[in-house]
Amino acid sequence: MTGPRLTRLAQTLPSDVPFIGPEEQERTMGRPFRARIGANESVFGPSPRAVEALSAAAPEAWMYSDASNHELIAALAEHMDARPENIVVGAGIDGLLGVLVRVLVEPGDAVVTTNGAYPTFNYHVTGFGGVLHKVPFREDREDLPALFAKAAEVDAKIVYMSNPDNPMGSWWTGREIEEALDLIPDGTLFLLDEAYIEFAPEGTAPRIDPEDPRVIRTRTFSKAHGLAAMRVGYACAAAPLIKAFDKVRDHFGMTRPGQEAALASLNDKVWLEEVRAEAAKSKARIAKIAEANGLTPLPSATNFVAIDCGRDGAFAKAILDALVARGVFVRMPFAEPQNRCIRVSCGSPQDLDVFAEVLPHAIEDAKAAQAG
Amino acid sequence: MTGPRLTRLAQTLPSDVPFIGPEEQERTMGRPFRARIGANESVFGPSPRAVEALSAAAPEAWMYSDASNHELIAALAEHMDARPENIVVGAGIDGLLGVLVRVLVEPGDAVVTTNGAYPTFNYHVTGFGGVLHKVPFREDREDLPALFAKAAEVDAKIVYMSNPDNPMGSWWTGREIEEALDLIPDGTLFLLDEAYIEFAPEGTAPRIDPEDPRVIRTRTFSKAHGLAAMRVGYACAAAPLIKAFDKVRDHFGMTRPGQEAALASLNDKVWLEEVRAEAAKSKARIAKIAEANGLTPLPSATNFVAIDCGRDGAFAKAILDALVARGVFVRMPFAEPQNRCIRVSCGSPQDLDVFAEVLPHAIEDAKAAQAG
Repeated sequence: MTGPRLTRLAQTLPSDVPFIGPEEQERTMGRPFRARIGANESVFGPSPRAVEALSAAAPEAWMYSDASNHELIAALAEHMDARPENIVVGAGIDGLLGVLVRVLVEPGDAVVTTNGAYPTFNYHVTGFGGVLHKVPFREDREDLPALFAKAAEVDAKIVYMSNPDNPMGSWWTGREIEEALDLIPDGTLFLLDEAYIEFAPEGTAPRIDPEDPRVIRTRTFSKAHGLAAMRVGYACAAAPLIKAFDKVRDHFGMTRPGQEAALASLNDKVWLEEVRAEAAKSKARIAKIAEANGLTPLPSATNFVAIDCGRDGAFAKAILDALVARGVFVRMPFAEPQNRCIRVSCGSPQDLDVFAEVLPHAIEDAKAAQAG
Repeated sequence: MTGPRLTRLAQTLPSDVPFIGPEEQERTMGRPFRARIGANESVFGPSPRAVEALSAAAPEAWMYSDASNHELIAALAEHMDARPENIVVGAGIDGLLGVLVRVLVEPGDAVVTTNGAYPTFNYHVTGFGGVLHKVPFREDREDLPALFAKAAEVDAKIVYMSNPDNPMGSWWTGREIEEALDLIPDGTLFLLDEAYIEFAPEGTAPRIDPEDPRVIRTRTFSKAHGLAAMRVGYACAAAPLIKAFDKVRDHFGMTRPGQEAALASLNDKVWLEEVRAEAAKSKARIAKIAEANGLTPLPSATNFVAIDCGRDGAFAKAILDALVARGVFVRMPFAEPQNRCIRVSCGSPQDLDVFAEVLPHAIEDAKAAQAG
């Protein structure tokens, strides 16, 4: 009996996971985290209107969702100052990235990103046989001109940038991005991931004609809207590219409660303002805790703070490991020299009490480990 | 400005949809359906425990789901008399089919199915460049020996069969399938889609060693469990194949409320029994309505009834169109000669009142159309 025959590409892929989830870490440790501030989730929760929509939709869970995402797309089109033909809804930005890479990237195609930027994008590129070309961060910011120059050099199908950036929290102004657009090489798609845009200062989002064929932007209900569990993201781009998603997307793949919660959340501007205010307070406190421990918080336009631990990647990793071992779920950048930092998501006051309590011990642990 | 460059494969794919959803039809008609009995959804709804789980999970929607699906997989492993390593959870069977085809089928690879069987499977195969080879139904049942013979002839990577069958409602006994397994060619994976198995007579599910490398079976919470909106399906197969899903799946792609509702539903045997009883009653009434109108209901091991309209595909299509125009959402088989039927899903007594009221008029409309 022969087993099934994987594709040549699948044979080369590891059965790896871009991220280990906190639940898996909790099972390994045998106890729950005391503070869950590692995945840039919104601990402030979903809008009360979204919670209401989720509960109201529960008895209707027997019905497949609207495969056209009609109402949500109409609302998002208005939100993005675009036409419905410019919007596609998908299972989070992760899901949308998978579909986008699938329709654009075939084995051997070049794709450009920043070394240490969003790993799940890289996972999709590799998963479809694309070849990643990585540009370093420049002063902890994604290097926009270098990204476009590299894209020209390797004839990239896609060049990826998140703005504001994950994992560093840095950002370009909208105007700077607008001015750089003419550097996009012919035939390269600029994938602008705006997962954290709701937390950024006014003017961080560039004004781009939705019909500009050079750009696609992705956004999500997983971050500021506090609906990570519901898998709702969207992309805005020229109509022909949006239509290409229909070639391969899972048409009935959205959940109905997710659609309804997203719509309710989009209409709750008051909640979004509260979340922004809470996130700002939380970031200020994270910065204060870092400074009180002799570490350097970096400026952030997101809902997390990258904290420079002042030494090398091994030291930051030791602090991170000690935080995790002591019940604080945090993450850190993967690439040098950004891996001198740990990344702490906004938390509730209680979460940050735990962080403040544990961090000095974690630093001691790390120093002891390095000294030993 | 050049637009993005699609892959050669994507350029050949239409921006088509395997199914038009009922909401889209309602928008086109400008009014809601009076009876939604076309998508084999469970109008009897989710288990009250699942509804409770959905509502309870709503405030926690800010947390990404457990990427390992640990608890749900543990429960499903027990349910399937398998190990957790034999189970993968995905965004409905549709989502799982997409991942499975992706890791097995590359452009030009042969895949075998029945002409007129589940179109979304075909959509995925075509979407990854596979070549479909179709075997006809035999007496309205998928032709198991012919499927395996064709798989041997074309050296298929996958041979697909649903049991019980959609859209005909027919089935093989578990013993018949067990006896046929030795006909599976070396290197071909037998994909046994058991979406409707909970409705089938005892003994319809074959006993297959989960570690048998020749077989993968798929099941869902979308049908008997009444959770279509939540996108929860699972597959059971040998551990190496299950592990291959981790190469490309969207690890954080499940919704947390969906995981919890599925778990609650799996543990509610009483509700499942009620749904089975309601479905049996509903099928009996659909059959009676069909007979009262001179049509022939076919035996069904599912939650729908294929009704033989007694003439050709055009006549059945005319009846279907008239039903839809009169507010009854139903569907029909795509391929000859099964397209002499319409397919009516189990409905509530109120749904079937509407069906009973409308069907005679729909038949008149169709006869008039054919006479004209």
